[in-house]
Amino acid sequence: MDALDYSRAHRVEFLDELKEFIALPTISTLSEHRADVQRGAEWLADKLRAMGLEHVAILPTGEGKGQPIVYADWLHQADAPTVLVYGHYDVQPVDPLHEWVTPPFEPTIKDDFIYARGASDMKGQAHAFMKALDALLKTNSLRVNIKVIMEGEEEVGSPNLGAFIRAHQDLLTCDVALNADSQMPSRDLPSIVYGLRGLCYFELWVQGPDQDLHSGRFGGSLHNPAQVLTELISGMHDADGRVTLPGFYDDVRPLSDAERAELARFPLTDEQWANTAGVLALWGENGYTTVERVGARPTLEVNGLYSGFTGEGAKTVLPAKAMAKISMRLVPNQTSDRVRQQLEAYLREHAPNTVRWQLKQLAEGDAILLNRDSPYVRAAADALQETFGVAPIFQLLGWSVPVTTFLNDILGVDVVIMGFGLPDDGTHGPNEHFYLPNYYRGIEAYIRFFENVGASH
Amino acid sequence: MDALDYSRAHRVEFLDELKEFIALPTISTLSEHRADVQRGAEWLADKLRAMGLEHVAILPTGEGKGQPIVYADWLHQADAPTVLVYGHYDVQPVDPLHEWVTPPFEPTIKDDFIYARGASDMKGQAHAFMKALDALLKTNSLRVNIKVIMEGEEEVGSPNLGAFIRAHQDLLTCDVALNADSQMPSRDLPSIVYGLRGLCYFELWVQGPDQDLHSGRFGGSLHNPAQVLTELISGMHDADGRVTLPGFYDDVRPLSDAERAELARFPLTDEQWANTAGVLALWGENGYTTVERVGARPTLEVNGLYSGFTGEGAKTVLPAKAMAKISMRLVPNQTSDRVRQQLEAYLREHAPNTVRWQLKQLAEGDAILLNRDSPYVRAAADALQETFGVAPIFQLLGWSVPVTTFLNDILGVDVVIMGFGLPDDGTHGPNEHFYLPNYYRGIEAYIRFFENVGASH
Repeated sequence: MDALDYSRAHRVEFLDELKEFIALPTISTLSEHRADVQRGAEWLADKLRAMGLEHVAILPTGEGKGQPIVYADWLHQADAPTVLVYGHYDVQPVDPLHEWVTPPFEPTIKDDFIYARGASDMKGQAHAFMKALDALLKTNSLRVNIKVIMEGEEEVGSPNLGAFIRAHQDLLTCDVALNADSQMPSRDLPSIVYGLRGLCYFELWVQGPDQDLHSGRFGGSLHNPAQVLTELISGMHDADGRVTLPGFYDDVRPLSDAERAELARFPLTDEQWANTAGVLALWGENGYTTVERVGARPTLEVNGLYSGFTGEGAKTVLPAKAMAKISMRLVPNQTSDRVRQQLEAYLREHAPNTVRWQLKQLAEGDAILLNRDSPYVRAAADALQETFGVAPIFQLLGWSVPVTTFLNDILGVDVVIMGFGLPDDGTHGPNEHFYLPNYYRGIEAYIRFFENVGASH
Repeated sequence: MDALDYSRAHRVEFLDELKEFIALPTISTLSEHRADVQRGAEWLADKLRAMGLEHVAILPTGEGKGQPIVYADWLHQADAPTVLVYGHYDVQPVDPLHEWVTPPFEPTIKDDFIYARGASDMKGQAHAFMKALDALLKTNSLRVNIKVIMEGEEEVGSPNLGAFIRAHQDLLTCDVALNADSQMPSRDLPSIVYGLRGLCYFELWVQGPDQDLHSGRFGGSLHNPAQVLTELISGMHDADGRVTLPGFYDDVRPLSDAERAELARFPLTDEQWANTAGVLALWGENGYTTVERVGARPTLEVNGLYSGFTGEGAKTVLPAKAMAKISMRLVPNQTSDRVRQQLEAYLREHAPNTVRWQLKQLAEGDAILLNRDSPYVRAAADALQETFGVAPIFQLLGWSVPVTTFLNDILGVDVVIMGFGLPDDGTHGPNEHFYLPNYYRGIEAYIRFFENVGASH
């Protein structure tokens, strides 16, 4: 029995194990889930060991303050390339909980989908490469060397991953890295990602009075910090949907005509995208298509707002402070540093002298553009073509996967980004789900990828 | 001995009784104090009866679910006017308890002040008019008819008072009402309040996508509802600090030159006000002073903001919806109805077609402007001038006091608002206190007011 047959024969067991994995509430953002994240690492270590991987270790990060990274390897093909496989086992918070149709940590199968927090992002995908390796090992057909790292802090922006990779460069030495945290444009069209946007995430506080005041007594006589915050934020875009931070577009790499032509092949109409997003109409930077706006152009988004009284009813408070979470998606060749300076410059210029303000950076990561011509990319493209019966599309992703930058920059290797999430999986929102046929095709594509890399050497 | 002499001869007894009154923890907001509020009503009924008032009754409100109203009268001057006197005997909660220097329900005298919850708001003031009536009755010099109502729910917004007054219109028939729940600008400058701002309170929801989305996946391609909300709110004021709702100022009664000159007597510098509010600088509608801005001009304030992720850390969510609590303080002759229409017109004009929005009205109440030229107001002004040696200032309050509207609208009588609290008494906060010299001057001023009303008829 070869690995593909093995994987097909064990789909029921694989799915049961995936459910176990997903049921662990490994929410890295919330400190009350710290023990759950640790349990997730232990669960993974057990499974990797059971698969036959070696040197399995739960390694601390951030001097023990970060979430652990699970490491494992299998290094028995002396002359073959070494593939470092990356995944993450942490997930996003689940609020608003009441919008979930089934409990977020009770994986529920309905039609062709499995519903749960992390089903798509990215326990389903991570488990697909684990089971690919499992099948190759169980059938004695693994012809490459493997190193696996599974991170527990991707959903908080991988704050300790760069330092970890830097500190463990020898351990992580490899010829190519595979990042399985990705997606494809539609159910039957696989993709290889060659670029990712970066992220710069901030918390902006505006403080007016020392403490909350009575809006009848003081209303009209001082600058309401919630109003100031809305003025600052509304000024961050102009009428053309462009970001107004000074110099924001100066470093942006323009798209070539060839690139724009390729992106235009992406099978997505504006109507489909509006339906997927559930909006009345699309909106964005003038002069660019939707595919360009979500992958190739930088953005500034409000992620959260808070001020004053938000409970039920009418409390006549004039708030002391107001807060916004604001983040920018960066494209090559913008840098986090420059964008932070641009935001600070904007605030210095526009914040009125009636209030105090404070800016806290919560996450950062530059954009990345990968080598499309390596033999490893070819091995991935062939694996996808064989599995799906169609050539993969080369795609730009709108979000950051900090690990890609770290692997590329610190280890100095090509990174292949190949994953099986779908745009409408509801990741980060309620009722996240994963399309099960692509869980199984994912396992097969990873098996073929490892086989192709082993055969090509 | 006349009533004034009597009151001066009994200051020690009066103060002892005030302490008894204040020591009762009549916190109407907290259900665990319901029995205490009832005890407060019984204590009051006993004292009013002991003073010689008749028909003393503890009347239920809200079909027994509300806190009781204490009623008493003295109706032995057939041809004289009847004065309905209003006070409340409930108080605010005491948290944060640890910030109190002395226990909130152990009245403590230090220098010229009595410290305790309710000392200023408004047991000290209520007891002052009680002792004025006591002195007049004990000296057989009361020449008007008196009805007293003491409410137990003022601090929760008088939810049952309107219905109570409507249901007891015959019982409460009178020629003028005196509301003793008020304050004066400074220790030696008495005041008569002749206007109160109204309130219109809304919750505005902006909905973009059906559910929260991943800001990397969708960012840049649709109109973020939090951004739309900030655009809508920031547009509600212009660069001159004026509210831009269409027609917002059309109904606003302009201030006369005489009125502005009178308001300018208010002893308050911008520096003092900025210190009281704890802000770096004041802000408001161009062309108006701070005293005018907080009492005589309408406002629009944000009371709360909510959208997306507001917890700890960086969640890369593109929110489905965003909410603001927004309220307007209204002045004569604005109406809640017209202002709601103006807000709706603004939103229809400015909300982009990329989002849906919904407006919910949570509270409403028109502004009130009292007759400054009635003989009763003159009686009060003369009483204050004689007691303090200075003419009272005619003052506009920035907030609403529901009872004033009820008395004015339902009973159809003039209301005289005359009280003796001070702006820095710390009402609603820790270490509330009342300036004792004005407790005694308050008793004398009320005695003179009742005498003046009796003499004028």
